[in-house]
Amino acid sequence: MGFGDGKVVDIHTHMYPPEYVKILESRTTMPLVRSFPGSEDPRLILLDTELPLLKEAEAAKSRGETPTSLPGRPLTKHYSSLSQKMHFMETHEIDISVVSLANPWLDFLSPEEAGPIAESINADFSRMCEEKCGRLFFFAALPLTAPQDVILSSINHVAGLPYCRGVILGTSGLGKGLDDPELLPIFHALAEAKLMIFLHPHYGLPNEVWGPRATENYGHVLPLALGFPMETTIAVTRMYLAGVFDQVPQLNMLLAHSGGTLPFLAGRIESCILHDGHLHHAGTKPKKTIWEVLSSQVYLDAVVYSDVGLKAAVHASGPDGHERLMFGTDHPFFPPLGSDEDGEWESVTWNGAAVKKAFGYGGTKDEEMESEEGKKVRGVMGGNAVRVLNLRRDGCR
Amino acid sequence: MGFGDGKVVDIHTHMYPPEYVKILESRTTMPLVRSFPGSEDPRLILLDTELPLLKEAEAAKSRGETPTSLPGRPLTKHYSSLSQKMHFMETHEIDISVVSLANPWLDFLSPEEAGPIAESINADFSRMCEEKCGRLFFFAALPLTAPQDVILSSINHVAGLPYCRGVILGTSGLGKGLDDPELLPIFHALAEAKLMIFLHPHYGLPNEVWGPRATENYGHVLPLALGFPMETTIAVTRMYLAGVFDQVPQLNMLLAHSGGTLPFLAGRIESCILHDGHLHHAGTKPKKTIWEVLSSQVYLDAVVYSDVGLKAAVHASGPDGHERLMFGTDHPFFPPLGSDEDGEWESVTWNGAAVKKAFGYGGTKDEEMESEEGKKVRGVMGGNAVRVLNLRRDGCR
Repeated sequence: MGFGDGKVVDIHTHMYPPEYVKILESRTTMPLVRSFPGSEDPRLILLDTELPLLKEAEAAKSRGETPTSLPGRPLTKHYSSLSQKMHFMETHEIDISVVSLANPWLDFLSPEEAGPIAESINADFSRMCEEKCGRLFFFAALPLTAPQDVILSSINHVAGLPYCRGVILGTSGLGKGLDDPELLPIFHALAEAKLMIFLHPHYGLPNEVWGPRATENYGHVLPLALGFPMETTIAVTRMYLAGVFDQVPQLNMLLAHSGGTLPFLAGRIESCILHDGHLHHAGTKPKKTIWEVLSSQVYLDAVVYSDVGLKAAVHASGPDGHERLMFGTDHPFFPPLGSDEDGEWESVTWNGAAVKKAFGYGGTKDEEMESEEGKKVRGVMGGNAVRVLNLRRDGCR
Repeated sequence: MGFGDGKVVDIHTHMYPPEYVKILESRTTMPLVRSFPGSEDPRLILLDTELPLLKEAEAAKSRGETPTSLPGRPLTKHYSSLSQKMHFMETHEIDISVVSLANPWLDFLSPEEAGPIAESINADFSRMCEEKCGRLFFFAALPLTAPQDVILSSINHVAGLPYCRGVILGTSGLGKGLDDPELLPIFHALAEAKLMIFLHPHYGLPNEVWGPRATENYGHVLPLALGFPMETTIAVTRMYLAGVFDQVPQLNMLLAHSGGTLPFLAGRIESCILHDGHLHHAGTKPKKTIWEVLSSQVYLDAVVYSDVGLKAAVHASGPDGHERLMFGTDHPFFPPLGSDEDGEWESVTWNGAAVKKAFGYGGTKDEEMESEEGKKVRGVMGGNAVRVLNLRRDGCR
């Protein structure tokens, strides 16, 4: 995308390694992968909102008919293929990608299988990074449904993998959310191992909040546009209220989608805490303010699709807020519709343009690149990620 | 709060007229008002999250004991007393208040009683405004649980009341949300009568999203700080996706709490619509972009408790965004804890300070007041409301 000599880094980019797709194909409940007549690619079905459509399509299939409407989204080569990821990076002039397993990760595995499958998936990512040495790093997946000792030894293991720079985490934790005290040893271990947590949504909000017309009329817009960022906001606010950031001061988190809605709501959170009779009498307010957490333990990606949101994200992240934001694409989600998926993706160019616009950065001339705004843009587009996640790898063959 | 010769207007300020409190006292399900031994004021109990505490306190009361912990919040004189409202306005140098019935309005009334009770409550508000002529205006309450003809005739009635400047609306509509096509005649009637809709949350999100630790540990913080603004965002986005703003182009809405989270999420909403296969194939995208709606049919209050949120709200509202924001207090909610409720309220001064900070407005000198920033501050603090809601009343006795 052309940012002078600065590296462009994509820290929000997912893959489903082939082994993971096989697991999804074998499942009978969400998440799952299914093939239908009349559809070239198999369908990836992740959201509970898609259940009615799935049932309809499977009924049609069992009658030998072509379903009129298909659940989920096409599971294209973009999801599993390393060469497609590299092609996508070339197309958008992305120098380095920090890939992660896409939602819902390993949240649905049995306690026995979670450990070995996590190890094997993380080995897959390690191999890809090794093959594209210096271009790829990854956030590892944790076997959160396994017993605690398995989770802790998995953290220990991934901390030693040369291309691993953190872990990707959903909002369910051990099943009771991220404010669960049982997670504290895990947060401590991650902080100790200096592994960034990339917090990412998957579960959204209960379907009832979208109302009776949503499934039929609004596609995936409500659960994706609102449910996802609201889920992230709720999860991290619960962690904050539980005192996790006070108790694990070395914990670092990267929040997907510029923190969901946290930058916008931080003031209201602070006010509601200040005015809450229960917290007032019980004396259980968090020690750090939400603004302190935002400017010291939280990093935000720049996947917010507008300069309005991006400016608020920078502004919420403190005086040096521009050093805490990192560009991302959310690839392979949000492909262009009705045009070539091998070409440029609008979802990517929007986020790049929002970064430039947020800093009022106009051009490509040398003096503009050396301006304060130019430096901030290059920081968000890649410099921050290289620094914060240490994205250097010497001795690549 | 001192803004030169500009009027300070509070457009987000609630009351429960005495008749409404009587209704709440007579109820056996939420919302309700209850008295308990050991508590000077009766308790106002609005949120479903308070049910466990209510049951506990009622059990203690029936055993003749003083409950250790009380549900809800104290129903102080601030909720019903006109003189207390005027005192609050004097304390904070508020010239004009546009009062509205507080949540949950008349949402819980039977179809038969809704019409007459709405008329009587709106008459109460009219009387108060008449008594404080020029200082008070109001948003009327609608009998939404009544048959459509009753609702339409109520709109017609309140449009003729001299101090009525709009209606306050929750998110449930006729019970199925604000994207319900049955609401269209009502939206058309409101647009025709040039009545602003003040959209306000009450129902929050289903309790399960707060997790098992919330009720005991976090007071009201999660449902109020997150549930309320998320509810507003969902409601207005559903209206937008249903094409209400396209179909009723004269409809004007004022969104509580600076739009909930809409300014921050507008970009993501736009992107999710652009990338949604279902909308793409069905051709059912809204005609106006969400940004067009934000800069033409939506107004935002300035009740967001930080300059971060406020700047985003201004920025999201278009090139003249500062003309679309209006100061509010949310009185009588969020009183100061542990200090004198008759004095200054921090929840008010925070929002006033955020307005000044958002525009980088420093001082009180004449030249500063005449600066561009000074004019914007005075607009948000009152000038916009006077203009948009026509808050003038000649011939006061």
